[in-house]
Amino acid sequence: MFAIAITLLIIEVGVNEEGGSLARRLAEQWPSYVAFVVSFTVIGIMWLNHHQMFRSIRVADHGLFVLNLALLLVVSFIPLPTKIVGEELHGTFADRRTAAPFYVSTFVAVSVVFNALWLWAARGRRLIEPGTPQPSIYAHTRRTFLSIPTFTVATLVAFWSPEVALILYGVIALSYLLPGDWVNRLLVPELRTADPEGDAEGTDPRG
Amino acid sequence: MFAIAITLLIIEVGVNEEGGSLARRLAEQWPSYVAFVVSFTVIGIMWLNHHQMFRSIRVADHGLFVLNLALLLVVSFIPLPTKIVGEELHGTFADRRTAAPFYVSTFVAVSVVFNALWLWAARGRRLIEPGTPQPSIYAHTRRTFLSIPTFTVATLVAFWSPEVALILYGVIALSYLLPGDWVNRLLVPELRTADPEGDAEGTDPRG
Amino acid sequence: MFAIAITLLIIEVGVNEEGGSLARRLAEQWPSYVAFVVSFTVIGIMWLNHHQMFRSIRVADHGLFVLNLALLLVVSFIPLPTKIVGEELHGTFADRRTAAPFYVSTFVAVSVVFNALWLWAARGRRLIEPGTPQPSIYAHTRRTFLSIPTFTVATLVAFWSPEVALILYGVIALSYLLPGDWVNRLLVPELRTADPEGDAEGTDPRG
Amino acid sequence: MFAIAITLLIIEVGVNEEGGSLARRLAEQWPSYVAFVVSFTVIGIMWLNHHQMFRSIRVADHGLFVLNLALLLVVSFIPLPTKIVGEELHGTFADRRTAAPFYVSTFVAVSVVFNALWLWAARGRRLIEPGTPQPSIYAHTRRTFLSIPTFTVATLVAFWSPEVALILYGVIALSYLLPGDWVNRLLVPELRTADPEGDAEGTDPRG
Repeated sequence: MFAIAITLLIIEVGVNEEGGSLARRLAEQWPSYVAFVVSFTVIGIMWLNHHQMFRSIRVADHGLFVLNLALLLVVSFIPLPTKIVGEELHGTFADRRTAAPFYVSTFVAVSVVFNALWLWAARGRRLIEPGTPQPSIYAHTRRTFLSIPTFTVATLVAFWSPEVALILYGVIALSYLLPGDWVNRLLVPELRTADPEGDAEGTDPRG
Repeated sequence: MFAIAITLLIIEVGVNEEGGSLARRLAEQWPSYVAFVVSFTVIGIMWLNHHQMFRSIRVADHGLFVLNLALLLVVSFIPLPTKIVGEELHGTFADRRTAAPFYVSTFVAVSVVFNALWLWAARGRRLIEPGTPQPSIYAHTRRTFLSIPTFTVATLVAFWSPEVALILYGVIALSYLLPGDWVNRLLVPELRTADPEGDAEGTDPRG
Repeated sequence: MFAIAITLLIIEVGVNEEGGSLARRLAEQWPSYVAFVVSFTVIGIMWLNHHQMFRSIRVADHGLFVLNLALLLVVSFIPLPTKIVGEELHGTFADRRTAAPFYVSTFVAVSVVFNALWLWAARGRRLIEPGTPQPSIYAHTRRTFLSIPTFTVATLVAFWSPEVALILYGVIALSYLLPGDWVNRLLVPELRTADPEGDAEGTDPRG
Repeated sequence: MFAIAITLLIIEVGVNEEGGSLARRLAEQWPSYVAFVVSFTVIGIMWLNHHQMFRSIRVADHGLFVLNLALLLVVSFIPLPTKIVGEELHGTFADRRTAAPFYVSTFVAVSVVFNALWLWAARGRRLIEPGTPQPSIYAHTRRTFLSIPTFTVATLVAFWSPEVALILYGVIALSYLLPGDWVNRLLVPELRTADPEGDAEGTDPRG
């Protein structure tokens, strides 16, 4: 379902029929492209994390199903604010102040549901695979939680400047793509010691 | 296919280009959001039930294939009435009385086909896995059947008040998400006795 | 991919914004609904046949890959003529005579590519699973081939009357859904003898 | 995800509501159909190559994940330039000179990311399955690389004549579909000797 939501993003990016030459119309639409790339990256990271999360979950219960459906609901909602922020960033001052917070607060909602899902499974190791090491669970918890304050700050920034908020979002999303899983290493010293060669020769085939 | 239908729902939710500020246009579109969430939840529950149903089916025959194709047909139709009810709930009195029953009667159709599919497989245990306990089949039959009268009542209500019908739909859909599988426990005392700890520690990984 | 194409069909069915009450606009769109159901049924049957075809194919070669890509091309094209025939059947006399043959000739193209794919695999049993009985291959060949003349006749009829062609299409599509695999039984007497109980208790789980 | 992107292409192909008879409007849209077929073929070939590439990859690391996400990003972007080139090839001289290079440079971007992905995995056999013969890796590297200069030449041609560039693209795409894997045989003499019967009786089931 992540695959479908991520591919549908482009359908919502259109080109204005009027407003000068095609080159100019394409250039003026830069907010649509930035929003497309940001949404794509966030859904992509979410997808990977969701996949990894469910690999360390041993059993599923009814609560996990409901929370998972809630996560799919907010993720499948993303194409709409992505479209709106791309179209309205050239609108009036008031509309820009509506579109950008609407867009970024969607990701806050995704983060909150994602955290609820993980905490439901991980608290007291309720639904966790027995072999999973405790430091790795803590690392996942901290890293997942980190998305709430950063996305909330970006939402507050969006009320002040949509453009800065979009760029901030890009930076947050890209930071999750940095090599070496740097956030985990920063937060969990145990992992840093256990795997000194970095993950360039890791053995999990994520392809 | 349920995954595709559920993700396509958002594509049909648009934003009016005219009609005041973006904030006002977004706020005025609340029927679209309610319809999106209701359709999402109903398809999500249908998806889970379809998945569980086919796990207890041992063999498939031609009739099951035709009924399954009919189910996919009505499910894949859902995005159209979802779009219409979202757009027309601010329309004229007559249009609101058309849009809401059109929307909710789609779910009656889905329920009827779903019941036909299950009865085709379960009547006389024709296509059922030998190990499946009979009370669990009865529970499934009763629970599946329950959706027809509740959805039909909501359709009748929609002729009187679209808004009340939408809210009723939300309540019906959410009731299927309640923890503890309460409908089955209400209807089938055997299950209540057999699994006294609730399903919080169940062993079927539905993720 | 069949699952995606079949679910996308509804996206192309819209509702006119103008032209009287919603009830009237919905009623006037009956060609869209008929085209939706016909396209859905044809893709659904194609999907099942494609699935069964590849179960009896032992190896794949480059030609099979190219023909399979060509089949996916024509199948993924179907939503466009489905949309056009739904919209233009209320158009001018000339436009109706363009839309209907455009629509039905797409299915002729699908049939021709489907036949080419099957003949490429089945001629001289080149790519066929060794255990497959020869009568079953012949039955498949005849049944697959039958779609070319029937769809071609429907195309010719479409030049004369779009409505009759649409109804003819529905009848052809539904005839493939008849119980007891009646076409094969009609064409291949061996099958009729070998499986006298009908397929109600068949053992292939197609779900 | 390739399956979704390839099926979404048709959604972006529309029909003008005005401009004479339907027959004339359909005929005037030939650039849309050519662009649809070209994009479909390129994504289809990319899909097959991506599938084959990941079959010869033993482990995945973080860099491979990031490059794979980047590849999905550019592939999922393809429907937008496909739509634009189809619509604007009847536009002004300037717009045609914008639309065509915009379209073909998307494929250059896809080629560059695809090459980066393969080189990341194959350089020094870092992530490659141990049993994979070295000549086959070299063949894959050369063939993958070849797409960059050919697509770049087509982009330069697009500045001069959009129509010639589109036709050139079709020829390049179709050349990848030629039987006998002729590019590899041309570039890697070892393969030519090792498999003298051609691939008509090959054993890899790609269906």
